[in-house]
Amino acid sequence: MQIDNWGDKILNGDRRALARAITLVESNRADHRVQAMELLDYLRRAKRQAIRIGLSGTPGVGKSTFIEAFGMMLTGQGLRVAVLAVDPSSARTGGSILGDKTRMERLSRDKNAFIRPSPSQTHLGGVARRSREAVTLCEAAGFDVILIETVGVGQSETVVAEMSDLFVLLLAPAGGDELQGVKRGIMEMADLILVNKADGDLKPTATRTCADYGGALRLLRKRPQDPEGFPKAMMVSAYEGTGLADSWTQMQALVEWRRDNGHWDRRRAQQALYWFDQEVRQALLARLESPQARAAMAALSDRVAAGEITPAGAAAEMLETHLGG
Amino acid sequence: MQIDNWGDKILNGDRRALARAITLVESNRADHRVQAMELLDYLRRAKRQAIRIGLSGTPGVGKSTFIEAFGMMLTGQGLRVAVLAVDPSSARTGGSILGDKTRMERLSRDKNAFIRPSPSQTHLGGVARRSREAVTLCEAAGFDVILIETVGVGQSETVVAEMSDLFVLLLAPAGGDELQGVKRGIMEMADLILVNKADGDLKPTATRTCADYGGALRLLRKRPQDPEGFPKAMMVSAYEGTGLADSWTQMQALVEWRRDNGHWDRRRAQQALYWFDQEVRQALLARLESPQARAAMAALSDRVAAGEITPAGAAAEMLETHLGG
Repeated sequence: MQIDNWGDKILNGDRRALARAITLVESNRADHRVQAMELLDYLRRAKRQAIRIGLSGTPGVGKSTFIEAFGMMLTGQGLRVAVLAVDPSSARTGGSILGDKTRMERLSRDKNAFIRPSPSQTHLGGVARRSREAVTLCEAAGFDVILIETVGVGQSETVVAEMSDLFVLLLAPAGGDELQGVKRGIMEMADLILVNKADGDLKPTATRTCADYGGALRLLRKRPQDPEGFPKAMMVSAYEGTGLADSWTQMQALVEWRRDNGHWDRRRAQQALYWFDQEVRQALLARLESPQARAAMAALSDRVAAGEITPAGAAAEMLETHLGG
Repeated sequence: MQIDNWGDKILNGDRRALARAITLVESNRADHRVQAMELLDYLRRAKRQAIRIGLSGTPGVGKSTFIEAFGMMLTGQGLRVAVLAVDPSSARTGGSILGDKTRMERLSRDKNAFIRPSPSQTHLGGVARRSREAVTLCEAAGFDVILIETVGVGQSETVVAEMSDLFVLLLAPAGGDELQGVKRGIMEMADLILVNKADGDLKPTATRTCADYGGALRLLRKRPQDPEGFPKAMMVSAYEGTGLADSWTQMQALVEWRRDNGHWDRRRAQQALYWFDQEVRQALLARLESPQARAAMAALSDRVAAGEITPAGAAAEMLETHLGG
């Protein structure tokens, strides 16, 4: 397909064209990569922006139920919602946290919703680039809200935060004052903490958990991108549907404040620079993956292992002779 | 100085020549780097090997006291001992865990001991390379034992394990069954756990701590490089000098077994390959640090931030135009 043609279809909200484009950016083939870059460049000119919400929560907090309920509420308001996943662990297991659309049965049938599982890749860097570009494609396709889901595994939260406008941490009610082992670094990324399952017997525990996290958030260093009262902790029940509208109101208020105060644009620009830097580094290191480079590394490795050359000497030879000085 | 001359002095155990060579490998200057590589290559031919002992312990476990007591015991047996430090945190604080030789007053005055603080560098990769090369220099200078000290910060234990023949974890006696928050990954690296301060009032606690860790070690997956009974936990008192000779006997037994069974050579070869790979990656990424590359990145960054080009497009241009295709 012609890039212009394809791009126009995406801009017109054609779901098949969008799905194919996401498959394109997920591909490792060099010719696909060239096409993907042309397509992304074409779409860039439309300058469309969605509200990108990063959502982290470990298994068991009710993430699928939350996304389904929250997504249905948004589409009920006439908004178009895309759901993407960043799951570095899927590379290992072969599965995917969003592989099974039955997890969000109603939302996946909603014509104003678009659900896409995590690309399976061998490393987080690969997942990250593909996910970020999928977000860009969904923005071009005119989605109003993009939910970027991740499980709390290793660096995946950082990666998701770097492609989101807001970062939401979904937690389950829990006793004890250990704050459920949420790492300080994750807490510091959160704009909103939602304590899910605030219903039935768990309501008192949820109330206490919410108060605990609210207190913990107030102890963190004030960030310039936060208006009065943020970051904050709230209770929701995805199951009963309570608190969802309120949490969306809070998100919108935060977005509006950040837009008015220049933080929105500044963050978008910073994120673009972050990804530019990451792409350059990954592309440089990818030079080690060519068949020629692998063969040269293997030959030098034999000499290093045999003690015939120092690691530093072998590295210098590799760089000079096989990686263009 | 001529490289051959300098190298011969190091091989003859000249401490000033050794100290200057370590300063050379710590330098970032390109001409120093060329000299350093020539020197390391010259020394490689001597094929000298020390027993390299990685030693990790958080502040408060009595690491300095242990190194001093253990080092003095070794020099008392006529062995020559070098002590190096790998401390990524010193880059931030400007200080160094071994900056103050008064920490090991007696050992630092011992003519058979050589103490060198951690190089201050901006990142762990820099500290790692310089430390590894300092280890190589000390081996060439004929030291019998090299103690490579680190604090338990981030990845520093992994880095130290990759330049050591044995990895020793030094712990303080502590109550509770939480195993003092030692991460499983660190436990799995340990060949020997030494519970220090097994003296006076702390002796019962040390005994229990030692039993706890001994139990935890037995639960770990058996590694091919371990003879019967290893890894093991033992008690020492650096203050009273007890357990030191016994721990050294155990280390020697482990070394002997690994030498006899090919694990020693195999591990040395694997480590050389690891460092070769790391050096190549770091050298590739270092291409981004040249003034020309920085300028090109800055110019492209402006266009990325302004939305005139996608991060992927800018990365491709950077690679093709400024980093030799």
